[in-house]
Amino acid sequence: MTTITATNPYTGAALESVAEETSPEEVAAVVAEAAATASWLSELPRSERAALLEAIADALEGAREQIVETADSETGLGATRLNGELTRTVFQFRFFASVITEGSYLEVTLDPAGDTPMGPRPDLRRMLVATGVVAVFGASNFPLAFSVPGGDTASALAAGCPVVVKAHPSHPGTSVLCFQLMRDAAVAAGAPAGVLGLVHGQAAGVALVKAPEVTAVGFTGSTGAGKALMEAIAERDAPIPFYGELSSINPVVVTRAAAAERAQELGEGLATSVTGSAGQLCTKPGLVLVPSGAEGDAVVTAMGQAMGRTSTVPLLNERIRDSYRSLTEEYAQTPGVEQVARGEAEGEGFGVGVALFQAPADELSPDDIAEIFGPASLVVRWDSPEQLDGVLGAVEDSLTATVQTGSGEGAELSGLTRTLQAHAGRILFNAYPTGVAVSWAQNHGGPWPATNSQHTSVGATAIRRWLRPVVFQNAPEAVLPPELRDDATDIPRRVDGQLVLPQG
Amino acid sequence: MTTITATNPYTGAALESVAEETSPEEVAAVVAEAAATASWLSELPRSERAALLEAIADALEGAREQIVETADSETGLGATRLNGELTRTVFQFRFFASVITEGSYLEVTLDPAGDTPMGPRPDLRRMLVATGVVAVFGASNFPLAFSVPGGDTASALAAGCPVVVKAHPSHPGTSVLCFQLMRDAAVAAGAPAGVLGLVHGQAAGVALVKAPEVTAVGFTGSTGAGKALMEAIAERDAPIPFYGELSSINPVVVTRAAAAERAQELGEGLATSVTGSAGQLCTKPGLVLVPSGAEGDAVVTAMGQAMGRTSTVPLLNERIRDSYRSLTEEYAQTPGVEQVARGEAEGEGFGVGVALFQAPADELSPDDIAEIFGPASLVVRWDSPEQLDGVLGAVEDSLTATVQTGSGEGAELSGLTRTLQAHAGRILFNAYPTGVAVSWAQNHGGPWPATNSQHTSVGATAIRRWLRPVVFQNAPEAVLPPELRDDATDIPRRVDGQLVLPQG
Repeated sequence: MTTITATNPYTGAALESVAEETSPEEVAAVVAEAAATASWLSELPRSERAALLEAIADALEGAREQIVETADSETGLGATRLNGELTRTVFQFRFFASVITEGSYLEVTLDPAGDTPMGPRPDLRRMLVATGVVAVFGASNFPLAFSVPGGDTASALAAGCPVVVKAHPSHPGTSVLCFQLMRDAAVAAGAPAGVLGLVHGQAAGVALVKAPEVTAVGFTGSTGAGKALMEAIAERDAPIPFYGELSSINPVVVTRAAAAERAQELGEGLATSVTGSAGQLCTKPGLVLVPSGAEGDAVVTAMGQAMGRTSTVPLLNERIRDSYRSLTEEYAQTPGVEQVARGEAEGEGFGVGVALFQAPADELSPDDIAEIFGPASLVVRWDSPEQLDGVLGAVEDSLTATVQTGSGEGAELSGLTRTLQAHAGRILFNAYPTGVAVSWAQNHGGPWPATNSQHTSVGATAIRRWLRPVVFQNAPEAVLPPELRDDATDIPRRVDGQLVLPQG
Repeated sequence: MTTITATNPYTGAALESVAEETSPEEVAAVVAEAAATASWLSELPRSERAALLEAIADALEGAREQIVETADSETGLGATRLNGELTRTVFQFRFFASVITEGSYLEVTLDPAGDTPMGPRPDLRRMLVATGVVAVFGASNFPLAFSVPGGDTASALAAGCPVVVKAHPSHPGTSVLCFQLMRDAAVAAGAPAGVLGLVHGQAAGVALVKAPEVTAVGFTGSTGAGKALMEAIAERDAPIPFYGELSSINPVVVTRAAAAERAQELGEGLATSVTGSAGQLCTKPGLVLVPSGAEGDAVVTAMGQAMGRTSTVPLLNERIRDSYRSLTEEYAQTPGVEQVARGEAEGEGFGVGVALFQAPADELSPDDIAEIFGPASLVVRWDSPEQLDGVLGAVEDSLTATVQTGSGEGAELSGLTRTLQAHAGRILFNAYPTGVAVSWAQNHGGPWPATNSQHTSVGATAIRRWLRPVVFQNAPEAVLPPELRDDATDIPRRVDGQLVLPQG
């Protein structure tokens, strides 16, 4: 049995161990316990499942201080950020309670029996149903929002799927604490304990995605780890969907007009976005495309100065710190790349300094442009729209793409917008990509390697990942799920092709 | 260059060659031509894309006689079935024209800027957009409905995705004919020719799914071929979704009451469903669960007699014929399996006879129960509900599962319904699974190996496979797609969480 020991990023000191690696046999038992609750959870009336989500939200909110303190000691993200993250997670559980209460997510569709151009049609009633046990992989950089609690777990439970989380080894204490709080809350609300499970260790993660009862996987992490899990999934008898949120460069385009109008504001805003949470956000701008010339120079200068004022920040763990050091050093050594700002290379614990580089577009190969996890970014200077398009088309696709515009710019950005739309899942104007609102319209996903799916991991439609369609043909009303019966007029339905709003 | 030569299943005689295998370089060129049309097609106003679909439908309808004659000579499916299939395909193109006109499929979601419990929220506007070039693999058993024309092609074009079809080698003439008709119709309607492409040969199929510009794959065929394509996809730099519709056993449960009330009708109905289209439908009942005892005996006797009256039928090609022969022979040799009806082993061309077997549930291992493509089925006799559940839980999951009930049965079928729902995508009552209505509510999919996706290949929501979400944050109205602008009130939208119906 191997003990899992986290390290305090502020000091580099080992923390008390709270978990051991879960053996393959134990993983099988945890998954079996989850699977045994699948029918109960999926058949629980939506109002009661909403109440379960609210109870979990209450439990997390009720232990705020303890959670934030534990998470800070394991991640070094600081109380302000962690309090905000917990607020977001609590909101997310309540938000999904409202999403399932509203009911559109079921896609209830009723085709009454009758004559059609294709001849007589039977009575068909379609809705989405829970897929079964879901595996969720906690991310190092969001101990509360993409981990044991968070959008994946909230949306899967909302869908009616039991969840087994593979804890991230950088915050095992936070994982165990949240797990116990959430599980106790679920049990107190009347649920069987198996609706939420927890496993530890890399081998346990592989065993988890290979467990026959697991029906889908939610993952946030590196492309390498994601690919390894996809390979494990490919070895299953029955393949299952893998919803991975992987790497993202998040290009920001600064137009000439924007640079001319707002150099100082943009430089400071970009610096804040790059360095927030020590640059460890999946939507951090890793590539800033600034026009050549004096206006562009002013943006880069302002950004460099603002970043230079940032003190040494602790990264999440030793691996991330080592990777940050070697990637920033690689940039610094790349011919044609100039160092604009560079903080102290080392600090106490896992501390590192910021890094801002720049290079002209024509002196840089797109292969040189990679995501650096941490407070670093690369400015690429462009001369012509063609050069800009060239860079945007050559770098890897992203979760986000941003345009900083001049006050008068509008329709002339259509071509650029179309280019960005092909390469990202969220297109922003005069905003910064870090900070992802949890809402009905949100999309947090994008073409590979941003995600490998056509779905989001944030926002209402994140629930779609844990659902599959079923249609009932000529079914007696007594065997139908309540939402497919004639009297289920409290949810939006499509009846004979027409969308019908709820009544009453 | 290898010539592709089809065989007339009625006679076994080689037909005139109409195609050659497409080289990897030619595949790349076809895909590039398709990719070059992607922006044009996705940005075409929905009304004009609907008109394009209607034009293709008209062209297919206008060449009905020639299409049916060509398809019959290559597939042996007969003019009645092929006329019905063409009608269905023509309807499907028109149906998807209506689906995109209605507009719900875009999932337009507007979150206006404002204060929320999580603080100020930006303006977010989400919709689904076309993914890009789609690869479609024609199926042997549906030369007109899951081939060059059909639901995959219609839904992908409707979504705004150019399509490259890999023709099935059993009906190359039909494929080339339909391709030319459809492409000519598209060009006459103002489209660039590249919106539809065609390639031939197994290696070309592998090259197609590996082409970087291809964004998703629609496949209908065997589990083995599907798995080979999934492996090819796994070798891509950027993985893409594979929507495979693979094998399906389609269990039919006959309750004691049904057997007692309707033995003769059920036996005849099942025989018709098993032998229609020479048993080469993906929803053919391959497993019929009949109660033990005299009532069940009557069902099996009636089914055997009706099947025995069916004459020799030609299968689609030599491989399918050989596989049918060996699998039916395997069943015949399995200890405990009794032969209820067995037609002539051989006929002219690829002709075969029907085969009906039966075995008691406790004498058969679930591993013995496999899909036999062709006019064969297996009756398993059950004693207790537990035994029934055991068989249903042990065999592979399916596209459909059916219950034949007694006239008074209802609520007592809830447990059985729940079991079936876990193992299939369409649950039928007192109906036969063959025959899949094209409609808003239809679902043609199910857990692996029925499909490997959470989507359908028939019905309105089949379009979801070729779409991905994009959200615009604080975008100037001028750069937004028309459907995301404030004035797009002609389609259903979710505004600030509320579903709003079209106005006017």
